[in-house]
Amino acid sequence: MSQARFYTLDDFEVAARAVLPAEVVDYFAGGSGSERALAANRSALDAVSVYPRMLAGAAADSATTMLASLAAMPVAIAPMAYQRLAHPDGELAMARAARTAGVPMMVSTLSSYPIEQIADTEADLWFQLYWLRDQDRLEQLIGRAEKAGCSAIAVTIDLPIMGRRLRDVRNEFTLPAQVIAANLVDESDSAADPGSTSMAHVQRAGASAVAAHTSERFGPTLSWAELEWLRARTSLPLVIKGILDPRDAIRAVEVGADAVVVSNHGGRQFDGAPASISALGAVVSAVGASCQVLFDSGIRSGTDVLRALALGASGVLVGRPMLWALAVDGADGVEQALSMLATEVAEALTLAGCLDVASSRDLRTRIEGSLR
Amino acid sequence: MSQARFYTLDDFEVAARAVLPAEVVDYFAGGSGSERALAANRSALDAVSVYPRMLAGAAADSATTMLASLAAMPVAIAPMAYQRLAHPDGELAMARAARTAGVPMMVSTLSSYPIEQIADTEADLWFQLYWLRDQDRLEQLIGRAEKAGCSAIAVTIDLPIMGRRLRDVRNEFTLPAQVIAANLVDESDSAADPGSTSMAHVQRAGASAVAAHTSERFGPTLSWAELEWLRARTSLPLVIKGILDPRDAIRAVEVGADAVVVSNHGGRQFDGAPASISALGAVVSAVGASCQVLFDSGIRSGTDVLRALALGASGVLVGRPMLWALAVDGADGVEQALSMLATEVAEALTLAGCLDVASSRDLRTRIEGSLR
Amino acid sequence: MSQARFYTLDDFEVAARAVLPAEVVDYFAGGSGSERALAANRSALDAVSVYPRMLAGAAADSATTMLASLAAMPVAIAPMAYQRLAHPDGELAMARAARTAGVPMMVSTLSSYPIEQIADTEADLWFQLYWLRDQDRLEQLIGRAEKAGCSAIAVTIDLPIMGRRLRDVRNEFTLPAQVIAANLVDESDSAADPGSTSMAHVQRAGASAVAAHTSERFGPTLSWAELEWLRARTSLPLVIKGILDPRDAIRAVEVGADAVVVSNHGGRQFDGAPASISALGAVVSAVGASCQVLFDSGIRSGTDVLRALALGASGVLVGRPMLWALAVDGADGVEQALSMLATEVAEALTLAGCLDVASSRDLRTRIEGSLR
Amino acid sequence: MSQARFYTLDDFEVAARAVLPAEVVDYFAGGSGSERALAANRSALDAVSVYPRMLAGAAADSATTMLASLAAMPVAIAPMAYQRLAHPDGELAMARAARTAGVPMMVSTLSSYPIEQIADTEADLWFQLYWLRDQDRLEQLIGRAEKAGCSAIAVTIDLPIMGRRLRDVRNEFTLPAQVIAANLVDESDSAADPGSTSMAHVQRAGASAVAAHTSERFGPTLSWAELEWLRARTSLPLVIKGILDPRDAIRAVEVGADAVVVSNHGGRQFDGAPASISALGAVVSAVGASCQVLFDSGIRSGTDVLRALALGASGVLVGRPMLWALAVDGADGVEQALSMLATEVAEALTLAGCLDVASSRDLRTRIEGSLR
Repeated sequence: MSQARFYTLDDFEVAARAVLPAEVVDYFAGGSGSERALAANRSALDAVSVYPRMLAGAAADSATTMLASLAAMPVAIAPMAYQRLAHPDGELAMARAARTAGVPMMVSTLSSYPIEQIADTEADLWFQLYWLRDQDRLEQLIGRAEKAGCSAIAVTIDLPIMGRRLRDVRNEFTLPAQVIAANLVDESDSAADPGSTSMAHVQRAGASAVAAHTSERFGPTLSWAELEWLRARTSLPLVIKGILDPRDAIRAVEVGADAVVVSNHGGRQFDGAPASISALGAVVSAVGASCQVLFDSGIRSGTDVLRALALGASGVLVGRPMLWALAVDGADGVEQALSMLATEVAEALTLAGCLDVASSRDLRTRIEGSLR
Repeated sequence: MSQARFYTLDDFEVAARAVLPAEVVDYFAGGSGSERALAANRSALDAVSVYPRMLAGAAADSATTMLASLAAMPVAIAPMAYQRLAHPDGELAMARAARTAGVPMMVSTLSSYPIEQIADTEADLWFQLYWLRDQDRLEQLIGRAEKAGCSAIAVTIDLPIMGRRLRDVRNEFTLPAQVIAANLVDESDSAADPGSTSMAHVQRAGASAVAAHTSERFGPTLSWAELEWLRARTSLPLVIKGILDPRDAIRAVEVGADAVVVSNHGGRQFDGAPASISALGAVVSAVGASCQVLFDSGIRSGTDVLRALALGASGVLVGRPMLWALAVDGADGVEQALSMLATEVAEALTLAGCLDVASSRDLRTRIEGSLR
Repeated sequence: MSQARFYTLDDFEVAARAVLPAEVVDYFAGGSGSERALAANRSALDAVSVYPRMLAGAAADSATTMLASLAAMPVAIAPMAYQRLAHPDGELAMARAARTAGVPMMVSTLSSYPIEQIADTEADLWFQLYWLRDQDRLEQLIGRAEKAGCSAIAVTIDLPIMGRRLRDVRNEFTLPAQVIAANLVDESDSAADPGSTSMAHVQRAGASAVAAHTSERFGPTLSWAELEWLRARTSLPLVIKGILDPRDAIRAVEVGADAVVVSNHGGRQFDGAPASISALGAVVSAVGASCQVLFDSGIRSGTDVLRALALGASGVLVGRPMLWALAVDGADGVEQALSMLATEVAEALTLAGCLDVASSRDLRTRIEGSLR
Repeated sequence: MSQARFYTLDDFEVAARAVLPAEVVDYFAGGSGSERALAANRSALDAVSVYPRMLAGAAADSATTMLASLAAMPVAIAPMAYQRLAHPDGELAMARAARTAGVPMMVSTLSSYPIEQIADTEADLWFQLYWLRDQDRLEQLIGRAEKAGCSAIAVTIDLPIMGRRLRDVRNEFTLPAQVIAANLVDESDSAADPGSTSMAHVQRAGASAVAAHTSERFGPTLSWAELEWLRARTSLPLVIKGILDPRDAIRAVEVGADAVVVSNHGGRQFDGAPASISALGAVVSAVGASCQVLFDSGIRSGTDVLRALALGASGVLVGRPMLWALAVDGADGVEQALSMLATEVAEALTLAGCLDVASSRDLRTRIEGSLR
């Protein structure tokens, strides 16, 4: 890999598309239904202008605190399933790069390495929880995350069912045998044999392995009551991910969330949803100082990070670009991508006249297209 | 037909275009004048974002009541003339599929099978009435609809004259001999001979057979007075179809309508009209709980259905996609399309956190493009 | 000419482009500068939706009164210079067709036939006045218009200098010898010899013959004072053409105008001007019932006419489409185009539920793109 | 050079692209990051419509006063570095043309000829100051500008660091040896030898020579305190360039600025910034009559100048078009471009009914796209 040709996060996508199988590219890049929410995430971000301030008198310091995590910049790795699809080192490589870059990483319930093994990298991990139908296994999973040293628990609430991702359906996409939901392998399974019996039925389930997991393991019965139970169950900071309506954000605060994530799941769930950035301001206003608000969906540059901060986010999650970087060059690729993003964030803050992340909230914004 | 290749309603259009004569495709797909209203129907729907709620705690139930009809989902088949143009089984196939799917079907005055024969399918039929110049035949037609067991009468009021559909004019489109306005054949005509004398002059009328029917049989003299007469004439629920200005909706309520249909006739009448969805909210506000508001024009997915519901509709009519499905595979095609749509509606409701159709009205909406 | 292929006014443009020299097409079709105002005229009209009303109970009557003229529809022919460029019969053919269609025609000061000869067609003429530097000739011209029986005088006020029409400049466009400003030929000139000495210098002026006329004959010194003089000078109804700011409309009323024309000169003068339709509403509000408001720039269909009426215009001027029709088939072409437009206007009014032109002002409008 | 083919300022760009090396074109034309701010500068200007007034009674007088400078039109040459990249005569040619046209020229700190030599042209120069890290050299530079007879000092405040200009980075753009920052050459350097030792390290710095200068010579520590010092240090009129937020404009007034320049640096600094024109109105409102407001970024025609004036600017800076003209034909090219722009400005003012620059502020504006 000639490192010199990567100048933007998008350059990693171009390179990754050249090395990944087409159906894996589709699985990573695709959205649900018409992919309108997916497209809106980008177009709505591009329409946000931020009025820079001048003469701050110093370069910006990008360091910040999200939940209990000190981070080198207001960025965390978004939870993404099955990272071995991108690279054999999967979540292990992603975590190593996150640790080097000094940013937290959200580990998916559907990670392709077990949480314990990922924790061995000593990265700052937030465990992302899909609510399992099986209560015993759910409690077990929470316990494993705690024991592995995760510094937060994040529950994804926007997946009562999986969005219809037509690319995967048309491709009849299935996971290769070596890519498994490592955290969900029965104890009786041979973890060393990812193609073991208990997982095999998932492969057979047909059109979409992830859809199969979802309908089998998870369900639409999750309600606020379970989140109250979880809040009592663990002392870790609680993140509730997948909120667009401010009324849900208020509910999350009532349940005891330490942070909410404004997200339309990267355009992969309800395809009639607004762009995530269109929902951010109202959520920030609704929760005030009650909890942190993180932003997810569509971040592709330091300028995008600043847009979210100016609209009130305490930080952002970045997903697909890190998968592309992982595909391109494993841990080194992600490290390079995070380093590039860190530079961009620092430059955006400095060019906007912010001494630090907190001061970015004072910036004014507008939607390009009207002078008023 | 390989059923596996239909993943969206639009897929049926692609397939139908491959099997139908070009001028029939134009007749089905086309709009009036510049086709601006036609295009606006789609672009305006796509611009409507709906803020999903989270953690409803259960999957949605799509069943609902429209007029006196229990329906498996808030969808009815729109009234479309001359369905034998799409498939030899025409309205008979459409009705069979509607019955299987558990949705009502609006039967056009200009159906190519007589209403009695369509009623034999035991589908839940709403009879769509064009106001005939000949009062005797009009009363006769109403009586036939009642006797056939239709569960509602719907009067189309947006066709004082027919919109200038330039595709048909350029194509010099005429109906094939075997496609007739079966409900309007004189009793003295031989119904078994669709090319019979009384219909033949319609074919000869030249440019557009439908235009010929319209100018000959119908006229611009219809007024609210006649609707009052009709309201007194029948005890069936009354639907008034083709309303865009809220003042007309209020008038419809005064006349005794049980439902109004917000519609620009699929972009086929006044081409300077707004997109139907742009007119929905004000009509809903104007009529309040006085009558149901149905929505028509441009629905192509379950997400579109949810958009209309969130803006206050009690249900929607779906037209062209069902014609395309009919062309592709008769009753089986429509059944497949309705089944697909039912799944999409259920998924959209569930992903938006609605337990049922009624709760969808509580969803917030926005027009993508402005953050405020 | 196969008449059957003309279904919209735009069809005449397509046909005319095939028969006219490219530089004449550019002279007719072009706008000034970036042609942004030209483009905005069309895009802004297309964005205007009109909410049709239903069940008027009768077809519409398009007849109306503009100034002192009874017209078959709320349309007049816009003043356009040098119509012999389009067809040898020029303004004579245009006037014959206007008379047949029952609509007024504005005759340009720069007509290529003398006003007296055009008046011989017995069309209802409004004389369009460019303010000549030479006061004697100006008075002479007004007298000729009155004597020829013109039923109104219209002063164009948006041409202090000519807009920079880059197509003409790049083409080094000059008038052919036989096309002259017939009303401005000196009495001492041989009117039978259009290439006579007094006109020859105009040809020699180079880049643009019209620009030459303008700078030589007209000037930027015209002010409201001269319009007051004109108001006193003639008893004909006075039209002031070329208004976009409502403050100028109020001034026009004070001066005694019977009508103002909201116009950006078809995008041919100030290229930073708004689309004409964007200026209409405020002018209508400003003048109230004090004078009629006519609309000009971009009308291409009956639906466009209705848009202007719904926004408060008493009628519209139609320009380029009539020139294209003239080029295609002389008086017969224009007659066909006006007949088509009359049908479209009647259909638009009827489809919008208007009994007459006056009732169209009660229609509601919106700009497609926002639901509020 | 055939002068006849230049009809708009954009024509110079087309011609310049044919004669300049591709990487120099990229350096001139490019913006930072995604180049969204660059593109927005143009699209936002095009969306501004100005309502012309009629019958002013005379042609416009374009002459005006900006700061202490009498100018033939409300235009000054924007400060642009390294003009020898465009033409061997560089800033000398630019200044000669500015003098001929009667407009001020802002000379960049990074000019490729020394300020003294440029001043020899007797043009009206405003010296643009980048704040050097070395206080002694900074004072020296100010003194040189004063001594050379500059009539204003303009401090650029939107460059705490340089924006990431990806075209230059991808091109690994470096300055040719003969193009130097002539004002920054050490006195001990041989000014006659632009490739001298002290500059050579800049060339070696790699990716971008300008970036190298920036990081080495300038820094993000500039604050309002230094501007107060400068205000006290010089009696020349003070211009503060690079303001988008009105709060910074108010601060500039407090510091004693005689003018502020609303600018996003031609889209070359913070790529999330709004279009400059989107920021103009609020700045004008904020400062009122306290100081002049100049506008920069995207001006390409006299119509654009009028747009800025109508929104409250006292004048505009024009950059890239003058560089292109310089590349095409040196001083003659710029003279021709400025002459063209002067004609366009006069025509735009006259077509908008303005007698002078001051009256243009009374014009109404709108953003094309909404009627309200």
